[in-house]
Amino acid sequence: MSDDIAMHCTSWRVAVEANNLGPWKTIPDECADYVKDYMLGRSYNVDLEKVSHESGIYAKSLELGADGMDAWVFDIDETLISNLPYYSDHGYGLELFNNVQFDKWILEGVAPAIKPSLKLYEEVLSLGFKIILLTGRNENKRNITVSNLKHAGYQKWDKLVLRQVIKLFKGEHEREKSASAFKSDKRKEIMAEGFRILGNSGDQWSDLTGTSTASRSFKLSNPMYHIP
Amino acid sequence: MSDDIAMHCTSWRVAVEANNLGPWKTIPDECADYVKDYMLGRSYNVDLEKVSHESGIYAKSLELGADGMDAWVFDIDETLISNLPYYSDHGYGLELFNNVQFDKWILEGVAPAIKPSLKLYEEVLSLGFKIILLTGRNENKRNITVSNLKHAGYQKWDKLVLRQVIKLFKGEHEREKSASAFKSDKRKEIMAEGFRILGNSGDQWSDLTGTSTASRSFKLSNPMYHIP
Repeated sequence: MSDDIAMHCTSWRVAVEANNLGPWKTIPDECADYVKDYMLGRSYNVDLEKVSHESGIYAKSLELGADGMDAWVFDIDETLISNLPYYSDHGYGLELFNNVQFDKWILEGVAPAIKPSLKLYEEVLSLGFKIILLTGRNENKRNITVSNLKHAGYQKWDKLVLRQVIKLFKGEHEREKSASAFKSDKRKEIMAEGFRILGNSGDQWSDLTGTSTASRSFKLSNPMYHIP
Repeated sequence: MSDDIAMHCTSWRVAVEANNLGPWKTIPDECADYVKDYMLGRSYNVDLEKVSHESGIYAKSLELGADGMDAWVFDIDETLISNLPYYSDHGYGLELFNNVQFDKWILEGVAPAIKPSLKLYEEVLSLGFKIILLTGRNENKRNITVSNLKHAGYQKWDKLVLRQVIKLFKGEHEREKSASAFKSDKRKEIMAEGFRILGNSGDQWSDLTGTSTASRSFKLSNPMYHIP
């Protein structure tokens, strides 16, 4: 890879992480090798350890209320568990997202833990946070998601919020909302129950932005795909 | 610089740009050479061109109202004009911020334009946006700020909002607010006047986050300092 390509692709990756890009469907062709090297090399893990570490510093700095209503919200895919085995077979984001193939992978239920996130999860759990998992996965994947999470080392949580299954008739249903709108609405409901969302971890900006946002949000690196 | 240091410092820089860090006062010691190389090499400019380009794509995609109330908010320092000549004499963020010395530099009024931002400024101006400049600089720097901006090529704007001068007596005044709170309050006032803030450009997350945020915000790279 030339220095020029590496510089250009780093610039693109930083723009992804800084939320400077509009919606995108695949990684830039010329960054195929760059993204692969990043994901398989040490950088990706170093970045994940960094965000886990910073999240932990913040979590430990907080004084939690006696009512047990302080919560930390985690996204699931590319946040708690990794679909890298799937994406390594599909160009690390170079191929257009294929819903059918990805669902097949999900249903295997073997996505491994993202280790630095497992560490953070155990940390916030032991600090006394309520753990809320908020995912764009459909409700019909609840069982396999639970089993995958447990298999990966995530043993308990207070809520696991998934999307409603797509309905075939027209009308208002959650599947049509953007991820950002869906997650904002769910955070609002969670807050209405009395939870204080002090921290939020996600690999997509749509996990973190919108309305009813957490006191502090942490963006995990993900140069492979974008969910608006 | 070893590969390890470069990887660690890139990880730190990406964490800055992704808003994953808590408040920090100086760059990490071990990243002194890294930050210098980044600022003086091509990467910084490539990153600024990237965000300018993405901002322009977004600006051009919008249909503006006929009432002339669509606005773009720009921060000034490290967004429209560059204090790199000052920071190059002060370790590129390695030294603790010195208010007295920095003010002396500001009063010279010779900070050069950030070229990719000047390009974006001219683009949004010609598209018909109202230009609002919102800065943490004190009101007593208005004249030198205007003269510096004009000298750097920024010829017109609709509003230039600075902070009130520090008052020596105690009490509520804007200087005590965080930059994020000050800018949120000002954006709220601007919106109350009827402006629609469609875009916002800044090198600090405190330029962009908080309340009354823009429809879309763009984070310019700045690994040299942090303003909460």
